[in-house]
Amino acid sequence: MAIETIVWGENIHERTNDTVRAVYPDGMHETIARALNADTDIHATTATLQDPEHGLPAGRLDGADVLVWWGHKDHGAVSDAVVERVAARVWEGIGLIVLHSGHFSKIFKRLMGTPCALKWREAGERERVWVVNPRHPIAAGLGERFELEQEEMYGEPFSVPEPLETVFISWFQGGEVFRSGMTWRRGAGNVFYFRPGHETYPTYHDATVQQVLRNAVRWAHNPQDAYEAIHEGPNVPVESAPEPIRERGPKLHAPGEAGYR
Amino acid sequence: MAIETIVWGENIHERTNDTVRAVYPDGMHETIARALNADTDIHATTATLQDPEHGLPAGRLDGADVLVWWGHKDHGAVSDAVVERVAARVWEGIGLIVLHSGHFSKIFKRLMGTPCALKWREAGERERVWVVNPRHPIAAGLGERFELEQEEMYGEPFSVPEPLETVFISWFQGGEVFRSGMTWRRGAGNVFYFRPGHETYPTYHDATVQQVLRNAVRWAHNPQDAYEAIHEGPNVPVESAPEPIRERGPKLHAPGEAGYR
Amino acid sequence: MAIETIVWGENIHERTNDTVRAVYPDGMHETIARALNADTDIHATTATLQDPEHGLPAGRLDGADVLVWWGHKDHGAVSDAVVERVAARVWEGIGLIVLHSGHFSKIFKRLMGTPCALKWREAGERERVWVVNPRHPIAAGLGERFELEQEEMYGEPFSVPEPLETVFISWFQGGEVFRSGMTWRRGAGNVFYFRPGHETYPTYHDATVQQVLRNAVRWAHNPQDAYEAIHEGPNVPVESAPEPIRERGPKLHAPGEAGYR
Amino acid sequence: MAIETIVWGENIHERTNDTVRAVYPDGMHETIARALNADTDIHATTATLQDPEHGLPAGRLDGADVLVWWGHKDHGAVSDAVVERVAARVWEGIGLIVLHSGHFSKIFKRLMGTPCALKWREAGERERVWVVNPRHPIAAGLGERFELEQEEMYGEPFSVPEPLETVFISWFQGGEVFRSGMTWRRGAGNVFYFRPGHETYPTYHDATVQQVLRNAVRWAHNPQDAYEAIHEGPNVPVESAPEPIRERGPKLHAPGEAGYR
Repeated sequence: MAIETIVWGENIHERTNDTVRAVYPDGMHETIARALNADTDIHATTATLQDPEHGLPAGRLDGADVLVWWGHKDHGAVSDAVVERVAARVWEGIGLIVLHSGHFSKIFKRLMGTPCALKWREAGERERVWVVNPRHPIAAGLGERFELEQEEMYGEPFSVPEPLETVFISWFQGGEVFRSGMTWRRGAGNVFYFRPGHETYPTYHDATVQQVLRNAVRWAHNPQDAYEAIHEGPNVPVESAPEPIRERGPKLHAPGEAGYR
Repeated sequence: MAIETIVWGENIHERTNDTVRAVYPDGMHETIARALNADTDIHATTATLQDPEHGLPAGRLDGADVLVWWGHKDHGAVSDAVVERVAARVWEGIGLIVLHSGHFSKIFKRLMGTPCALKWREAGERERVWVVNPRHPIAAGLGERFELEQEEMYGEPFSVPEPLETVFISWFQGGEVFRSGMTWRRGAGNVFYFRPGHETYPTYHDATVQQVLRNAVRWAHNPQDAYEAIHEGPNVPVESAPEPIRERGPKLHAPGEAGYR
Repeated sequence: MAIETIVWGENIHERTNDTVRAVYPDGMHETIARALNADTDIHATTATLQDPEHGLPAGRLDGADVLVWWGHKDHGAVSDAVVERVAARVWEGIGLIVLHSGHFSKIFKRLMGTPCALKWREAGERERVWVVNPRHPIAAGLGERFELEQEEMYGEPFSVPEPLETVFISWFQGGEVFRSGMTWRRGAGNVFYFRPGHETYPTYHDATVQQVLRNAVRWAHNPQDAYEAIHEGPNVPVESAPEPIRERGPKLHAPGEAGYR
Repeated sequence: MAIETIVWGENIHERTNDTVRAVYPDGMHETIARALNADTDIHATTATLQDPEHGLPAGRLDGADVLVWWGHKDHGAVSDAVVERVAARVWEGIGLIVLHSGHFSKIFKRLMGTPCALKWREAGERERVWVVNPRHPIAAGLGERFELEQEEMYGEPFSVPEPLETVFISWFQGGEVFRSGMTWRRGAGNVFYFRPGHETYPTYHDATVQQVLRNAVRWAHNPQDAYEAIHEGPNVPVESAPEPIRERGPKLHAPGEAGYR
């Protein structure tokens, strides 16, 4: 059964900026979804900011395995309710892949707990992405490095929590470096940030970038059932304790009372 | 110069519950602050939920090095503005020590990006805290373990991100285990969670617990100046690039334009 | 294609101790291999200390995907050459699962870089293994905990490096705790330590333990080709630099000279 | 009381190569020790490969807090006994700072459990070291980056275990990147690797590099007493169990018998 993947695109610059439209006439999300669908073990569909509930109603998210997120121009337009819904699903186990300017998206900042800020420069300079974790699943099939002749520069420090693993580090022509591929786990959900993808360049048409995206979807996919218990903070009454104990001492809570949240 | 520490206490049960008042007649925050002030390299004062701005106005936070947080009954009463203010200061470098039921505080969940849920049982059972990271600064002066004859049980799974280091793991009489001491870094701020401290038991009167609190304050203290740049996402114009480059290719941003957030 | 797995057993107590022979008449390695072969995506064979080259000649290791290691009585009898051979293959990408008393095996200590010491007690006490990382691949299909009515106690501190992720923590009847499932990556190889399995108890006949073993083999398996370049420390001559540069300044090495090791 | 620091230098090229002697007429170890002694809270002395027991007899190591290691030409000449002695002391809590070509030293490979290999090029190119973890103690007082106009290139992948924290990442003129500052903990000992320092360039005369070295010594210093228990794997007899239990079931070990190692 294919990995059910939703590619979320902000879909603003593709409609309002001639340069971007020329590179991604169908929208970046469609280009990315096509790249994912090139392999039959992934089934990708798209959703955009303009769709009702941004294309992410609860029913649809419930059936998803992985969510890919690209946004830039209007992070603030994403409703907080949808952000919380996505966060809850990540904790339950869907994978999340955040692309490029999505570093400032509400959902990424929500899951990281940090500002997720960085330096930037839009000068069409060369980016060379080095694989620092060879044979990591996200780097499968890649050589030691790949190059993007024109990209926006993102520079360190990138204010995210220390990752589980660093997979890619970028070299920029103008002199900066950036941790371009990092992994985290939030609840049962795997999270991957991947740097490349400024909308004025044909980055998502690049074969190696497309390979990384497919690898990342497979890596982020958690085939187990949803971990819904993560939303609970259950009381374990004395009579249900794994070992027999007798209750003693002063108490705050009446029997059966819920805890404070 | 002493480490300027604010002990924040919710200060509800100490005033409304006879059992708790009997254990902490001056409030838990005062007991904790006294324990910290026992060593001259720490200078601890207190703040409570009931104070204006919960005792955490910007001016006071600016002068603080470490914030200790205990809350339980009414996490929701803490204003979102104060939570964001504290988060910003942690990113800039103040240390944060979250105690016991503070696992469900807004500030801890904000910085972790996860539900921070756990199991619990209030049965006055024995807790044995094991040092799994001997000679970690937070365990300085401790033996291989210490015991609290009566405590509330907290059980795994505890839905927090994988920590930088695990310092303590607790054994409970009723059969559960818990990672009772864990560290994270968020921006320039050190964060430590310490499990013991249910308000109906005299936990913060325990000499070993007090030692852990003092150790934690010292560990969390970052003596460097505030890292205010973490709030920025600066553009680096072509003429300021570390290496000389020429701008090329299509552009989205006009010169000097701020990035999208 | 099935995951080619070698189950390595020390195979001493099964032949010399009546108690152990009664529990594992064919040897522990055979019991473990049968448990792995219960699923068709794993193909497990066995090797023992007594085999030539301990059953791990280079040719056989070259064809293996995962190695499971159980040893106890005579770690010192494993030849250093075989240990180095296995380490090299782990760095190239085969998975390694170290069981119970294998914590003191040469290969585990070699890969951890620490003493890997712990406390122990052989008293047939109850062990309760808690899943602290729900929906981790190694915990797939498990409930929140499982119990082994009689096991040897292993107690913290366990002197291993901080893991990538902690999956299991054990509670022992006698009052200790232990991080019973931890993961690391060494080169391209995934490493998992799993605590249960004292030879006088029927632990490897337990259905849940067998499920963990199968999960661990799948998790440890890296399907990519061997990362042989990890053994090199290549010079990149000036004319092969990704960016054109001119050599300058004083030099130590003659052109084409190998680096010092 | 000052941090007792031993700066270990291989001391070969300084005596045999005119270029290196011109840069470090007293040896690199003396230059480094002087830089450390510039602050009064550090007391640095030196040791070299040519000294009896390489200048690291047990008595001297016992009194040390931090060991700084630079070697290149003849790692193999360091005796295995001294390597094991140093490893044991690191596990007990002394800090270890490994510099530049020390990545291939026996002691570093011993503690990492991996090949510690990398790419290299000796072309006198520009290195720009970026601080990716601002306000980390090792980066105290530094700006966002510093430059070394001529250095040897080290390129990724660097085959070390995922660090606790990445502090520095280098950009090289020829197009490579490198994680130039990483931390690990091994037992009670803090370990830091710092990349710069090829012997034909005046790197250790650089004021910023010297600041990093002093910061690193302070960070690596663990002021607690030696954790000698790490060398033990103690039996906890039934009568010493923290909780009262009765021994039951089959046994392998006679009472009081030591465990197998």
